[in-house]
Amino acid sequence: MLYKLRLTKRLVSKMKIVSCNLDGSVDITGCILSIYPMDNRYADIILSAVNSLNKQKLPVWSKTDLFSTVYRGRQENVLDVVKNACQLSYRNDVHTVYELTISKGCPGDEDADHFLNEGIQKLSITEATKNFHVDCKYSFYSFNDAETNMDDISEIVNMAERCGLNPQPLHYATSLSGSIETLFKYFEDALEYAHKHIQHYVLEATISVNSPSLK
Amino acid sequence: MLYKLRLTKRLVSKMKIVSCNLDGSVDITGCILSIYPMDNRYADIILSAVNSLNKQKLPVWSKTDLFSTVYRGRQENVLDVVKNACQLSYRNDVHTVYELTISKGCPGDEDADHFLNEGIQKLSITEATKNFHVDCKYSFYSFNDAETNMDDISEIVNMAERCGLNPQPLHYATSLSGSIETLFKYFEDALEYAHKHIQHYVLEATISVNSPSLK
Repeated sequence: MLYKLRLTKRLVSKMKIVSCNLDGSVDITGCILSIYPMDNRYADIILSAVNSLNKQKLPVWSKTDLFSTVYRGRQENVLDVVKNACQLSYRNDVHTVYELTISKGCPGDEDADHFLNEGIQKLSITEATKNFHVDCKYSFYSFNDAETNMDDISEIVNMAERCGLNPQPLHYATSLSGSIETLFKYFEDALEYAHKHIQHYVLEATISVNSPSLK
Repeated sequence: MLYKLRLTKRLVSKMKIVSCNLDGSVDITGCILSIYPMDNRYADIILSAVNSLNKQKLPVWSKTDLFSTVYRGRQENVLDVVKNACQLSYRNDVHTVYELTISKGCPGDEDADHFLNEGIQKLSITEATKNFHVDCKYSFYSFNDAETNMDDISEIVNMAERCGLNPQPLHYATSLSGSIETLFKYFEDALEYAHKHIQHYVLEATISVNSPSLK
């Protein structure tokens, strides 16, 4: 119980209220994705993943700048595209870090709301490495009033425990550990729960693979 | 004027209120730093920077985990240590990304408040590359009431313009461009201003050097 309370306190201490809905749809989900392969081949690795993705008809809006790519659309489709981007840029001999900021209900999202009309599509890209171990740190920011948040955030952490992702408190965040498929299934479940119970939320995650620090 | 308003709106749309001060000092500044050199030598580059830093008597608390290092102490000292870590891990032939989360006034900071008693110390490490071009995207989160924030955040953006860092709006953030010395001088000035006018704040920044996308 003490463990759960500690975890909850840490998560709740990060709660924020975003001044949202100035304009735009609150139903569109956005994810900013940066991929950092710590390897001389980083450009080829990233470009090859992007080219494979672009051969598909993606059910999401996307835009790339110097720092990252933003994907926006239905939550299920955005998570699936991002998971595929991670799988396509995975190399079993390369330490790679993926930075994700998933947000829903924020302004500036007035473009391309028509992507919400897309059906749920799961990409099937044969050249991707489907499953591998990941370590993750994440913070979940809920924008409801504080009373509701305690229960909702507890539930979201409990979902990670039930998925077997072994949540542990870090400085300013919580760590998870498991397979990439389990992690994204958890993100999907957690965001589905959040969609039902929390009006606005942001999930920030750092996913690390093949770190030499684990040896 | 339209440009400034757009910029301000984007920044304000990211405003959050953190549920803070559960415990701990509000005067301690923390910075979570991750360094991502996109190169086979990434481990040597990071370890060599850490070793050079550790030869100094650092005026800050620090802790490293699988994902990053947290530095905490007086704002001036934390910024100086982080800038030196960036400079020490810079290689003019390596595309490197630095992720920083600078926060002040948040809970969980009960340890090592005595570092606030340290004098302001500027490190002088001869082997570091002192100055180089950086591109940066950042978001500034202010936790005052909304009316004050508008003016304060406008002023913080205007400070970047006056420093010559050419702030431009991005999706969910603002970009800056200049030298690392100018960028950290701006961070110092912006946080000093924030300290006087805003009780709680977080600055999230991604710093990119030698990106092949610039060519």
